[in-house]
Amino acid sequence: MKRYERVAQTLAQRIEQGLYRTGDRLPSIRALCHEQGVSVSTAQAAYRRLEETGQAEARPRSGYYALTRTTPGVLPRVTRPAQRPLDVSQWDQVLELVRGAPAEDRMLMLGRGIPDLEAATLRPLQRLLATLYRGVDARGLNYDNLAGSRELQRQIARLMAASSCLLHPDDILITTGCQEALSLSLRTLTSPGDVVAVDSPSFYGTMQILKAQGLKALEIPTDPRTGISLEALELALEQWPIRAIQLTPTCNNPLGYTMPESRKRDLVALAQRFDVAIIEDDIYGDLAFTSPRPRTIKSFDGDGRVLLCSAFSKTLVPGLRVGWVAPGRYRDQVLHMKYVSTGASATLPQRAVAEFVAQGYYERHLREMIRQYRCHRDVMIAWVERHFPPGTGISDPQGGFLLWLELPGAVDCVRLNERLAVEHLHIAPGSLFSASGKYRHCLRLNYASPLTARVEAGVRRVGEMVSELLS
Amino acid sequence: MKRYERVAQTLAQRIEQGLYRTGDRLPSIRALCHEQGVSVSTAQAAYRRLEETGQAEARPRSGYYALTRTTPGVLPRVTRPAQRPLDVSQWDQVLELVRGAPAEDRMLMLGRGIPDLEAATLRPLQRLLATLYRGVDARGLNYDNLAGSRELQRQIARLMAASSCLLHPDDILITTGCQEALSLSLRTLTSPGDVVAVDSPSFYGTMQILKAQGLKALEIPTDPRTGISLEALELALEQWPIRAIQLTPTCNNPLGYTMPESRKRDLVALAQRFDVAIIEDDIYGDLAFTSPRPRTIKSFDGDGRVLLCSAFSKTLVPGLRVGWVAPGRYRDQVLHMKYVSTGASATLPQRAVAEFVAQGYYERHLREMIRQYRCHRDVMIAWVERHFPPGTGISDPQGGFLLWLELPGAVDCVRLNERLAVEHLHIAPGSLFSASGKYRHCLRLNYASPLTARVEAGVRRVGEMVSELLS
Ligand SMILES: Cc1ncc(COP(=O)(O)O)c(C=O)c1O
Ligand SMILES: Cc1ncc(COP(=O)(O)O)c(C=O)c1O
Repeated sequence: MKRYERVAQTLAQRIEQGLYRTGDRLPSIRALCHEQGVSVSTAQAAYRRLEETGQAEARPRSGYYALTRTTPGVLPRVTRPAQRPLDVSQWDQVLELVRGAPAEDRMLMLGRGIPDLEAATLRPLQRLLATLYRGVDARGLNYDNLAGSRELQRQIARLMAASSCLLHPDDILITTGCQEALSLSLRTLTSPGDVVAVDSPSFYGTMQILKAQGLKALEIPTDPRTGISLEALELALEQWPIRAIQLTPTCNNPLGYTMPESRKRDLVALAQRFDVAIIEDDIYGDLAFTSPRPRTIKSFDGDGRVLLCSAFSKTLVPGLRVGWVAPGRYRDQVLHMKYVSTGASATLPQRAVAEFVAQGYYERHLREMIRQYRCHRDVMIAWVERHFPPGTGISDPQGGFLLWLELPGAVDCVRLNERLAVEHLHIAPGSLFSASGKYRHCLRLNYASPLTARVEAGVRRVGEMVSELLS
Repeated sequence: MKRYERVAQTLAQRIEQGLYRTGDRLPSIRALCHEQGVSVSTAQAAYRRLEETGQAEARPRSGYYALTRTTPGVLPRVTRPAQRPLDVSQWDQVLELVRGAPAEDRMLMLGRGIPDLEAATLRPLQRLLATLYRGVDARGLNYDNLAGSRELQRQIARLMAASSCLLHPDDILITTGCQEALSLSLRTLTSPGDVVAVDSPSFYGTMQILKAQGLKALEIPTDPRTGISLEALELALEQWPIRAIQLTPTCNNPLGYTMPESRKRDLVALAQRFDVAIIEDDIYGDLAFTSPRPRTIKSFDGDGRVLLCSAFSKTLVPGLRVGWVAPGRYRDQVLHMKYVSTGASATLPQRAVAEFVAQGYYERHLREMIRQYRCHRDVMIAWVERHFPPGTGISDPQGGFLLWLELPGAVDCVRLNERLAVEHLHIAPGSLFSASGKYRHCLRLNYASPLTARVEAGVRRVGEMVSELLS
């Protein structure tokens, strides 16, 4: 055993014995050298080793912090939404959340669905964009192919093979973010008045599409570990004329679960039996903490009824608006919808993302982000366990960077948010994620970016305020 | 009078006397020096003077060509579309036109709606984009404000003041191209089955929105010099439950006319009387050949019923997909539509365009393009007069870069296009511009890019083939 390995082992044992809990500061490099009688480079190597094993986390300009796999003591309960089609409301609250570019300097936005945009592994993307624009020719300024840049279609097909999805580049249409992919899919499949079954809680952006299109949401009970209840969905399919099933089965937003593969397969069978289409939102799928990443529902799709929607907004950056849809048998109709909605997508961002993937930067970036988000999940769960009232239900994310809390009592998180605003804090209230404003006692937190002392103080303060409101 | 002015005057007189017709090559610099006994710099100054007066045109690596204002001998007739609401068809043909990124190297695309993308005055845009991406921070990679980048909203408000439109930055929502602006507007105003009145011929992108939304098009007779017939429109409003009037009144695509201001004012009054909304597509408006540019219909709008749609796709470049809508009293609904359609628009392209405008590059570019397109219009009209069969109706564009031809007989331009394809030539058949495929004997040409010998040969060949088909 090398010297640095021995030092790492000593520290690991202390963490396992509970001498250091998740989020506790470990000895500084200097202190470790002194204590263990080793050189600076050995101490550094020991910490790098602990980072690799997921037992320590480096925080820039602060030092190393202990990390243990914290599983939540209490999970959120299986949801029990109203079992009938409802009109979607909540636009005012969604607008509140999405209206402005987040001004992190003034507000601590603990609730938005934004990845870490300061990651060093994103730099090559920036460089590619700058280089492409500097050397752009008339073609790069012109309308692109309507279906998308050939090279990007090809790279996405290659990436999706990792989820056991065998797509031809022509099966993929590039869109303006995942939002457009979802919107085109729903508009292709439905007419005003139709009913769409959704997991619940569900991403508010999709719910607002239902509202805009005059569709009704049928929210299906959802288990925070395994996702949408197939039993409840089957009953609903028997009872209501459902036109489409929309869900986020992998690294769910907001609940963080990944539906087990057997249930994904069963869902496809169910959809076949009732001859209904499935809109699968996979936007967080590449951020799963397991390798290889989980299979998509689409990968079980034998007859083209699954419309797979995704984007690089969570895995890379949202501001380029590069998304895509694999619409199966609905390709021609979705392409028409795309043409009338926005025409061809912006040209060079597609090329830049394609290059970023082709040159291996994407996989490197994912690896780094998955490591970071996995650490952060454990730290954030530990903080919530520490700072929130006992009995708080905490999700156990299998990927992505979002945590869902169910408060142990009738705290109204919209009101909570108003009180937090005074202190420049912000969470995403759970009611956004329901057609009719359920889950008011739930909230969503984001743990993507470095978990600084300021973030911990914020989480602590939210927890305190929840306790005050409960008492 | 300076020496070079005297030389310029001599040449101008010869052009006016008809010694040189539009498109004829003028003496080379060397020949002019020899003939007039002047220096190279004097000869060059003389040609620059002729360019300024619009009597000569420089073609890169070729020399100077004479230019006279050619007004078409025969205008297209006032259109007489079916006077009842129709379902829109023609998607297959539109798809044919818009599917692929144009490959100018193989095909000579004489029909697409694309500006000159090689213009030197575009370079600063490219530079701004490269610089912005190189120095981008997390904010530039993040979601932008939902309504749009503040700075771009401000610059657009400033620009629109030139069309007597007093807009507040908050009145403007940034979109993914003009296509999204039109799509959001129509979706906000209508439900499936509704009737929309349109000018005729009309931009096929809008017509396809009607198709996708299950709307019916009521095509209104349109005069190739003054636009939509207010008399016919009034009759239609009396007879049908029209939900919106959609038109392109300034530098119309495809007819090139600009509706006189008095008729724009009358149209607003008519819309008020029947309480109907107007969707005004102004995408070519800044390319009008008059200064100041013509007023928008929106500028006569007293009660917020005009939704003004535009983009930088024709004035700058299409591939950035930066457009906007000023939705008047429908702002909140259009903002919701925008959120559900694509979310916030891409961040840095908005900043780059805003900078380009703020630093004066936009006005410089417009000046240059207007000069170029005005020249090209005259050359293209002269070529068509020369190479097409007599009796061909030719539009007289007041701005933009599109020419509309009405052939003197029953030539089917869809078939014509098929025959042209074999010779790597392509025009836009007129039937694209009608709900039900009228105008099959019409076609659209583009004169944006340098009118090289290859282009003239192409136009000649199209004219010959038309003559063959007619005989
Ligand atoms: C589950 C889910 N789907 C879709 C979207 C929208 O993605 P985009 O920003 O690519 O439009 C989001 C973003 O918040 C999301 O969380
Ligand atoms: C009249 C008109 N409106 C709208 C558009 C679509 O513009 P954009 O490319 O900005 O979506 C075009 C483009 O061809 C057009 O000619």
